[in-house]
Amino acid sequence: MVPHLATAVTGPLLDLEKKILEATPAIERWFRLEWQEHTPPFYCSVDLRNAGYKLAPVDTNLFPGGFNNLSTEMLPLTVQAAMAAIDKYCPDARNLLLIPESHTRNPYYLQNVQRLMQIFRQTGLHVRLGSLSPEVTEPTPLALPDGNMLVVEPLVRSPNGRRVGLADFDPCTILLNNDLSAGIPSILENVHEQSLLPPLHAGWAVRRKSNHFKAFDEVAKKFGKLIDIDPWLVNPLHSKCGEVNFQEDVGMECLADNVSALLSKIKKKYKEYGMKDQKPFVIVKPDAGTYGMGIMTVKDASEVKDLNRKQRNKMSVIKDGVTVTDVMIQEGVPTFESINDAVAEPVVYMIDRYVVGGFYRVHAERGVDQNLNAPGSQYVPLAFAQQHAVPDLKAKPGTAAPNRFYVYGVVARLALLAASLELERTDPDPEIY
Amino acid sequence: MVPHLATAVTGPLLDLEKKILEATPAIERWFRLEWQEHTPPFYCSVDLRNAGYKLAPVDTNLFPGGFNNLSTEMLPLTVQAAMAAIDKYCPDARNLLLIPESHTRNPYYLQNVQRLMQIFRQTGLHVRLGSLSPEVTEPTPLALPDGNMLVVEPLVRSPNGRRVGLADFDPCTILLNNDLSAGIPSILENVHEQSLLPPLHAGWAVRRKSNHFKAFDEVAKKFGKLIDIDPWLVNPLHSKCGEVNFQEDVGMECLADNVSALLSKIKKKYKEYGMKDQKPFVIVKPDAGTYGMGIMTVKDASEVKDLNRKQRNKMSVIKDGVTVTDVMIQEGVPTFESINDAVAEPVVYMIDRYVVGGFYRVHAERGVDQNLNAPGSQYVPLAFAQQHAVPDLKAKPGTAAPNRFYVYGVVARLALLAASLELERTDPDPEIY
Repeated sequence: MVPHLATAVTGPLLDLEKKILEATPAIERWFRLEWQEHTPPFYCSVDLRNAGYKLAPVDTNLFPGGFNNLSTEMLPLTVQAAMAAIDKYCPDARNLLLIPESHTRNPYYLQNVQRLMQIFRQTGLHVRLGSLSPEVTEPTPLALPDGNMLVVEPLVRSPNGRRVGLADFDPCTILLNNDLSAGIPSILENVHEQSLLPPLHAGWAVRRKSNHFKAFDEVAKKFGKLIDIDPWLVNPLHSKCGEVNFQEDVGMECLADNVSALLSKIKKKYKEYGMKDQKPFVIVKPDAGTYGMGIMTVKDASEVKDLNRKQRNKMSVIKDGVTVTDVMIQEGVPTFESINDAVAEPVVYMIDRYVVGGFYRVHAERGVDQNLNAPGSQYVPLAFAQQHAVPDLKAKPGTAAPNRFYVYGVVARLALLAASLELERTDPDPEIY
Repeated sequence: MVPHLATAVTGPLLDLEKKILEATPAIERWFRLEWQEHTPPFYCSVDLRNAGYKLAPVDTNLFPGGFNNLSTEMLPLTVQAAMAAIDKYCPDARNLLLIPESHTRNPYYLQNVQRLMQIFRQTGLHVRLGSLSPEVTEPTPLALPDGNMLVVEPLVRSPNGRRVGLADFDPCTILLNNDLSAGIPSILENVHEQSLLPPLHAGWAVRRKSNHFKAFDEVAKKFGKLIDIDPWLVNPLHSKCGEVNFQEDVGMECLADNVSALLSKIKKKYKEYGMKDQKPFVIVKPDAGTYGMGIMTVKDASEVKDLNRKQRNKMSVIKDGVTVTDVMIQEGVPTFESINDAVAEPVVYMIDRYVVGGFYRVHAERGVDQNLNAPGSQYVPLAFAQQHAVPDLKAKPGTAAPNRFYVYGVVARLALLAASLELERTDPDPEIY
């Protein structure tokens, strides 16, 4: 089922779609060569924004939840990609330890965990769940909506201290589906005999969005050269501020200056493309962190100077009670897509270097310039499975769903490649990497 | 769309389905380990027969046509597998030369070629067609049903004699979709700098079905041990006769003896499984060759002794006018599947080690004990994409389509593994392999 989509079909994006479709062999070969030099993250989801005039990633998640939101038709693709990934890290693996988010009984999240377990069972692995929560001291059942149970178990370090597993379960691979917002747990430190995926420095305790988008600048530049386009068409402008404290009103000057400078840059770009009616905006968000918390849409620098107490509170603390000190300012890319009048943005899922599916995140009460990753959002599975379904070079640009999804898959993979560069460069222990 | 299928749901097959589903992690891991030791053929299609009491491959094709019969929903799976395959043989490849069957303007076959070209374009390759036909001396257009054109071009050996390509096209990989029934063409001999896939000895000029099924005996035995079943449940009994000449009535004694011995063996197996009403039969077919030619259903040894002139003519010559001298006798596995009252058999497609799709070959005018690969057969695309779609362990055996397709994918991969062993053992030049 492909939901009815309304997308802006004017301006440079059509040209972008056309260029990407025509250059498919060159693009796919380029990716093939890049993946010889760089290791893709184990898995990844990318939030895209299609503004009609540009198509860009706005968020790259290295601990994707939401696999339950992919349509079941996409499962074979996911299993095949997971097979390729496992084969690379641990070809003779028998056991996989999956570490989910702690402290959650959210049924949707648990369905995501269940789906991941099903996927890896089909790759020839016994999968069990280990918990980072100190409260889990014995096997603990968690009820699923379908009446089944998941069991999370306490993590155990092996007697010689070199391996992590469960009491009677020694995994070859440890897969994190916990983004480590709360910090790096000591039980996962110095694991060298097993594959710990993604690596610890991919967690939000270490990771910074600004590093990702710095790497993305490079990737977009290379890609722009490859298919002869302005990299801005796939890349949101960005800057950052450190040493911000919303609670104590510290660093607001830096924030306002950066917002102002970025708005000017965007305005210049709009002018270049003759977009007279478009009003620039930026998104202010924590440089580390996820879950759609602490995010603000800003249209004028004065807005960040005049934050009230309530707004400052909202911006200052995110998931797991972490205080925000580093802030990223990102060009706002409005979404011109909607499903049944609700604002929508595509999310693309990847395992290893393969696009395995996606969905639209839809929010009926949000605007085209707002963050949609918020309570009240819904998920519409998308026929991203069609993304490679022989793009139709003869279709009028903007009219064929497989063409659009293929283009989404290409741009999402640019973010995947950027994540790969980012992880290489931020690796605290590059010899082992 | 899953067509309505009627399948016998009694007897050992249900037990087989149950065992395979339960042992999924072990089976997938076993395949993973086997593929570390053995290289899968580049691509492969396997004809299966589901008799209700057994499920077995009856034919393994190393030059599969019919990619156009796979549903378009399966294309992403096919592209992903093709990416993995290309990455293995020629990761920096820019060009692929595809060599199709010669002398055919059959629109269905040309659609298969078109589909293959589309698939490999999506893996980042420029694809062009080279012809083995001496009549193709310049680029020659072939009309497709959709109004497009394919262009086949004459093959050219490079000036230093070491490479094969087209006049202005130097491929890294040469993919054969021509089964070489007519013999090994000299222009393809001694190609060492490029990947020639599948290798020349996979062609019917060299290949023998009996070698394949000898290798399959081993694979089935190992698999039987792995999941604790009688290998006969997935393996058709077989034997062979050399030096047969149907035209001159030579070798009929050997044939009759082998038919008789095989029928006795089958009868014994039927007795072991308490199948009183089942009448054994065998299939007599050329040990080399394809296209469903020269195939006969035999229920009694006397039938092969009393062949009339017309029958002998029919058995003696197959595709490309090749005379049959080696004959294989294979246990007949009736199909208990039908679609709208027409007899049906599943065909499973694989690229590298991945199941990428399949369809039912359906023939309204043939019986359950006859070859369906004959004029008048039709193709119903199957949701084999669901083959990995999280088999439902709680479904009653025989009732869930994803479960059945998963089981088909497992048995087809047993044949794939046998083909891999077969190609290793028959390689005339194992150092290079």
